[in-house]
Amino acid sequence: MTGERPTSDPLHGDMSSEEFRRYGHQIVDWIADYLDQAGTYPVLSQVAPGSTRQALPQQPPQHGESMDAILEDFQRVVLPGVTHWNSPGFMAYFGITGSGPGILGEMLTSALNVNAMLWRTSPSATELEQLTLDWLRQMLGLPAPLFGVINDTASTGVLYALAAAREAIPHLYIRQKGMAGRHELPPLRLYCSQDTHSSVDKAAITLGIGQEGIRKISIDADFRMKPDELEQAILEDLAQGWLPFAVVATVGTTSTSSIDPIPRIADICERHQLWLHVDTSYAGTAAIIPEFRWILEGCERADSLIVNPHKWLFTPLDCSVLFTRRPDVLKAAFSLVPEYLRNNESATDEVPNLMDYGNALGRRFRALKLWMILRYFGQDGIIARLREHIRLARLLARWIDESPNFERMAPTPFSLVCFRAHPKGMDDLDELNALNERIMNTINARGRFFISHTRLNGAMTLRAAIGNLRTTEAEIREFWQQLQEYATI
Amino acid sequence: MTGERPTSDPLHGDMSSEEFRRYGHQIVDWIADYLDQAGTYPVLSQVAPGSTRQALPQQPPQHGESMDAILEDFQRVVLPGVTHWNSPGFMAYFGITGSGPGILGEMLTSALNVNAMLWRTSPSATELEQLTLDWLRQMLGLPAPLFGVINDTASTGVLYALAAAREAIPHLYIRQKGMAGRHELPPLRLYCSQDTHSSVDKAAITLGIGQEGIRKISIDADFRMKPDELEQAILEDLAQGWLPFAVVATVGTTSTSSIDPIPRIADICERHQLWLHVDTSYAGTAAIIPEFRWILEGCERADSLIVNPHKWLFTPLDCSVLFTRRPDVLKAAFSLVPEYLRNNESATDEVPNLMDYGNALGRRFRALKLWMILRYFGQDGIIARLREHIRLARLLARWIDESPNFERMAPTPFSLVCFRAHPKGMDDLDELNALNERIMNTINARGRFFISHTRLNGAMTLRAAIGNLRTTEAEIREFWQQLQEYATI
Repeated sequence: MTGERPTSDPLHGDMSSEEFRRYGHQIVDWIADYLDQAGTYPVLSQVAPGSTRQALPQQPPQHGESMDAILEDFQRVVLPGVTHWNSPGFMAYFGITGSGPGILGEMLTSALNVNAMLWRTSPSATELEQLTLDWLRQMLGLPAPLFGVINDTASTGVLYALAAAREAIPHLYIRQKGMAGRHELPPLRLYCSQDTHSSVDKAAITLGIGQEGIRKISIDADFRMKPDELEQAILEDLAQGWLPFAVVATVGTTSTSSIDPIPRIADICERHQLWLHVDTSYAGTAAIIPEFRWILEGCERADSLIVNPHKWLFTPLDCSVLFTRRPDVLKAAFSLVPEYLRNNESATDEVPNLMDYGNALGRRFRALKLWMILRYFGQDGIIARLREHIRLARLLARWIDESPNFERMAPTPFSLVCFRAHPKGMDDLDELNALNERIMNTINARGRFFISHTRLNGAMTLRAAIGNLRTTEAEIREFWQQLQEYATI
Repeated sequence: MTGERPTSDPLHGDMSSEEFRRYGHQIVDWIADYLDQAGTYPVLSQVAPGSTRQALPQQPPQHGESMDAILEDFQRVVLPGVTHWNSPGFMAYFGITGSGPGILGEMLTSALNVNAMLWRTSPSATELEQLTLDWLRQMLGLPAPLFGVINDTASTGVLYALAAAREAIPHLYIRQKGMAGRHELPPLRLYCSQDTHSSVDKAAITLGIGQEGIRKISIDADFRMKPDELEQAILEDLAQGWLPFAVVATVGTTSTSSIDPIPRIADICERHQLWLHVDTSYAGTAAIIPEFRWILEGCERADSLIVNPHKWLFTPLDCSVLFTRRPDVLKAAFSLVPEYLRNNESATDEVPNLMDYGNALGRRFRALKLWMILRYFGQDGIIARLREHIRLARLLARWIDESPNFERMAPTPFSLVCFRAHPKGMDDLDELNALNERIMNTINARGRFFISHTRLNGAMTLRAAIGNLRTTEAEIREFWQQLQEYATI
């Protein structure tokens, strides 16, 4: 039968090593070509909803199929439904980037297939994670000791950090006693700015803090949390019987990449003994650049901090680093060792059992790709590439500033440019918003670029986020041309 | 300088495609050899704590290094610290297995590097996830409609499921109002057996239910939850002012792979309107085998259910499937769409935005490997392989039963054998425990096999978990020989 698999023993064991080798080589070649040509695909997939699913059988395959047939369907059905995050024209959300050494690392990780829940279940996975994150700490200029652990996403990391913050409240024993039905327990509150990432809201929901347990602090004209208002809010809440326990500040907000005033926020947290978590998921890696070292000023006083190598450090998804100065508290919030996971090796600071620092037990060997990336590019290679992204963003920002038909909507501290078309004489907000929405949709439909938006003081604002290793000045020039072309549509 | 990277443009862009190709081919060949020779490594790594970390530079690399140098260190330093989950002698915890098509799938996933948080950010990632999980549903014999979503681990899945269960309690609005400081809120309680996986305890901690919010129900002689005691506990708790809201039952517990009586537990949950979550992380896939279909009996009435393809369905880590009959509730617990993630495409049941069904925003294209695995092996190929693991487990169980020096400590419904050495005349529990601990440590130190343990009614119990595609009868015979050899040490 066409497409069925002609193997000698179709009912036992794995794919043969000959077959793995053949298709492995084929896929490596495909990946190399794909990465070279990533810019030739429409960035945002143009398939109709449901069409991918409809193009495939609705019943599971009864018999094994050949890898040829599977890869043919990958090309014919799956690939058109892919939005190409690798495209040099991908500038939506935060432009992220994988890299060759990262993909090679993932190949090894998936082949080794270790679950690094305990030190013993793969010592080098745990130790490489500790070493590589200490390298990253040094590159970021953060003082030792600082404990690091890799999670899938920053959403997970902030959930764990805030669980630790909750556990750090003296005498409440929330891990043991929970939060419901305790008449002695005041309502808990955490603080963040209006522009803090939605993952903080989700963490508060998950932890049972509730959306009402978050108090959002206003932002200034540059979209930074107002520290005076933060302290005022804490004092008000204390007076009204709330129990403040944590503040989440951000270096590089999602909307505009603004930088909250961390040193002043840290002062307030110290004064009121609140856990300070700093979200630097996107922008934190910029601190590797000497002239950007200042962005993490104050972060040495944070209780926890997140930086995502899978955003702007060339690392394929997923790899989000949670650093904490208080690993003992994180462990106290989560460690729980059932009999079937006990073992002779002692868990020490040097060789921790990483399952103790979060909710998830299973753990991929994610440090391997990061270790390979840091070594392959080296600190100076990383600095040069990040600087180039920032240079491109500033170039675009300058063109926008110099244009009579466009305006920048926020400062451009990193590689994200927030702007809108604003043709002379068009001053109605609704009209401007509609124009910019049309521009975004037109650009995205044309297929060379994919951008997303935010809303700043009611204004529909376009976001061009430069962060892919394949993006060059040529793309930025072409993007600017398209923008000018569409500025009056 | 030795090891430094000789590239034409070392400061911009990604690794060249020529270089990616060269090292990609090299790594594919290494993986093919490695998988063939996985049994020649000591299964449990024998490195000393800290030695991997010490063998590498303590400072981050200043300059880029050659991939040759990196891969040399991988072989020299990293590999000795790997515990070989791919070894045919890996029988600790649950023996898991990746597979050739799964690794090929991961290669494509890491190259595409899409974040499938929204449908639009890679339609085929979302649609393939929905289609493949519907294939899996059909293979498991579960009735439609059943919504599925892939998470990293079952720990994450049960956290989300119990968050949904909490949100499903009428009139409490925990998402909005949280749980602390609410005098009208009774203490919440969830139920599971003594032998339920520790991830349920962790979920309760994270959710703010607290460890005291879990009531553990006793198990019968075959390690199954006692439903009469469950109902009794619920009635008692109701009388004492607790608010019962969920029950977690297990098909294939971690200690012994026992099967809780799901139909009777489902009756109780329906009577008391409690959310029923069934953890079938390890054993659920056995329901693909016609004569094992019965193990999921009653699960069609569960509100949520987890099955882990990364455990016993040949899928590299990580891939844990959360199925729910109540996706609306899961979404109500978690959906939260900030402006920068709004988009024109409507989220429908056919094309959901999968970020809405959990805490994590980022999402790898994990469905691709599962889709490739189901097609490559086909339903009959999967059935044959699972049957073989079960046959091997029963063979070992029979030898143990027939031996005067060993005894089985629990039924063997799947591919996990729980047993201990029990030489004639040795009847002191401490002495037996010490003997079995010595046996385990001796076997693990010898390097051909890696087993773990549990404690059943105080008895140190050895666990041999068969689940790797490379494990054959030859390994089981050799394992049994080693056991007999060490039975009196």
